[in-house]
Amino acid sequence: MNPLYGAIEAGGTKFVCAVGTGPDDLRDEVRFPTTKPEETLKQALDYFRQAQKKHGRLTAIGIGSFGPVDLDPNSPTWGSVTATPKPHWSDTPVAPLFQKEFGVPIGFDTDVNGAVLGEHRWGAGQGLHTLIYLTIGTGIGGGVLNNGSLVHGLVHPESGHILLPRDPAVDPYKGSCPFHDNCLEGLAAGPSFEGRWGKKGSELPPDHPAWDLEAHYLALGLHSFLCSLSPQRIILGGGVMDQPQLFPLVRKNLLALNNNYIRHPSLTPEGIDAYVVPPGLGNRAGILGALALAEKAAGK
Amino acid sequence: MNPLYGAIEAGGTKFVCAVGTGPDDLRDEVRFPTTKPEETLKQALDYFRQAQKKHGRLTAIGIGSFGPVDLDPNSPTWGSVTATPKPHWSDTPVAPLFQKEFGVPIGFDTDVNGAVLGEHRWGAGQGLHTLIYLTIGTGIGGGVLNNGSLVHGLVHPESGHILLPRDPAVDPYKGSCPFHDNCLEGLAAGPSFEGRWGKKGSELPPDHPAWDLEAHYLALGLHSFLCSLSPQRIILGGGVMDQPQLFPLVRKNLLALNNNYIRHPSLTPEGIDAYVVPPGLGNRAGILGALALAEKAAGK
Repeated sequence: MNPLYGAIEAGGTKFVCAVGTGPDDLRDEVRFPTTKPEETLKQALDYFRQAQKKHGRLTAIGIGSFGPVDLDPNSPTWGSVTATPKPHWSDTPVAPLFQKEFGVPIGFDTDVNGAVLGEHRWGAGQGLHTLIYLTIGTGIGGGVLNNGSLVHGLVHPESGHILLPRDPAVDPYKGSCPFHDNCLEGLAAGPSFEGRWGKKGSELPPDHPAWDLEAHYLALGLHSFLCSLSPQRIILGGGVMDQPQLFPLVRKNLLALNNNYIRHPSLTPEGIDAYVVPPGLGNRAGILGALALAEKAAGK
Repeated sequence: MNPLYGAIEAGGTKFVCAVGTGPDDLRDEVRFPTTKPEETLKQALDYFRQAQKKHGRLTAIGIGSFGPVDLDPNSPTWGSVTATPKPHWSDTPVAPLFQKEFGVPIGFDTDVNGAVLGEHRWGAGQGLHTLIYLTIGTGIGGGVLNNGSLVHGLVHPESGHILLPRDPAVDPYKGSCPFHDNCLEGLAAGPSFEGRWGKKGSELPPDHPAWDLEAHYLALGLHSFLCSLSPQRIILGGGVMDQPQLFPLVRKNLLALNNNYIRHPSLTPEGIDAYVVPPGLGNRAGILGALALAEKAAGK
């Protein structure tokens, strides 16, 4: 019997559900807003019940979820969204619900760990073993693959919350994060544009100084990830990265920060374009990441 | 036949060589200064030739080396010290020399990756799978274990060179690193004490403000590693950490920086003492780390 996977991109704003086996076989995608768990999860359960009638039995389901989440397989609350600021969703057991309903293996991870796995499987990380996928949108999150395995560790990476140098004479804005002044997310995620410039990023022209500052902070973050994780490639997704002027600026700033300290062909003007890249799967990185989590859970 | 391992802690200042099988069986340790490669490596080769006569055939040799080093098994220069600022040592093939002479598997890695592996095997990281070992001495280096495997990635982690926030009103000193202002190593390694205070750390009393500042910078670094690597435990070694007042200050600062963002029992006043810890192997972390690299190379 051919495998068939279910995939859920469980975002804080919207859920995307699909069934299929890969980028060239993604069927029946649906999306609906994330409201209360009982409503949203019921919609997802109903979708997969119908999808099974139409396409046959699911082999496994992958869920890439907003967080924080419990990824410890030995924990009684494995598969839950834990203490999230999102109303109604704290301590919601997501994965166990699908496991109980469908009786199949469930691959449950952060949305960004799903995305880095999907990029490794079908996208910009193919053939490599150590990668970071960063999404720069409403927040900043990082999924990390090391030696081919997803990084969980103590909880899971919270890459957006590393702290950065900031020169108050250049930028008096301390950031939008309620937990930390000067963290990457606070200084460079979407809301920082409104906090600093009074406008959304999408409303600013490409030659606005906002983009130089944004590239500066992103490069400071990438430099830290380069030093701490030693990724073979850095994949940058999320709405903020849709600005085409950003990639060249980020790459230039990262090279300047490295200052020829770490020597590698990827960290040269010739190599950097292939080192800091957009997702190979584009805006399907999330849902295909969830599909990759399902495939992994099925042991393929 | 019982296994017998050779171990080399190849430091920029001194080499330590030993044979044995573990912490309770470490024989014949010798140490000599690191001078020119032809002299120092000959001393090491001679030591193991003699050791084999006395103790029997070696099963494998582990080398934990100062860096940067080439860890790519597919590279023609695997096992070399590469572009190092240390005079005479750039592009020195270390591991291949021992492989050729003794015809046994060679475990070659950074000194700090060796140390984290040794701590995992016999020290403060037993039973865990995701760890960082930081040495705070003349420089700052980090060894990282993730899901039980050592992190190499693009080159290898250069944890000391992450960039930190610094308030010039509190600390006008930009750091001692010739490559980066405001990096962890530049702001917090041994030489920063002389640069900032005009005295060595060991000459300053325990209530000197230097220690609060040191703990502040170390905690900023640990916060970044917590967010990017999600280690289950952080092990701090190196000469600077011999100051007993530092551990409590670092732990307190790290909890304040996390500000209850990442929720985990280890990140509470009750849990933090077991989260940020000294090496279980004490000042033998380096040589036992090299022994662990040998054991791993032998496939045990």
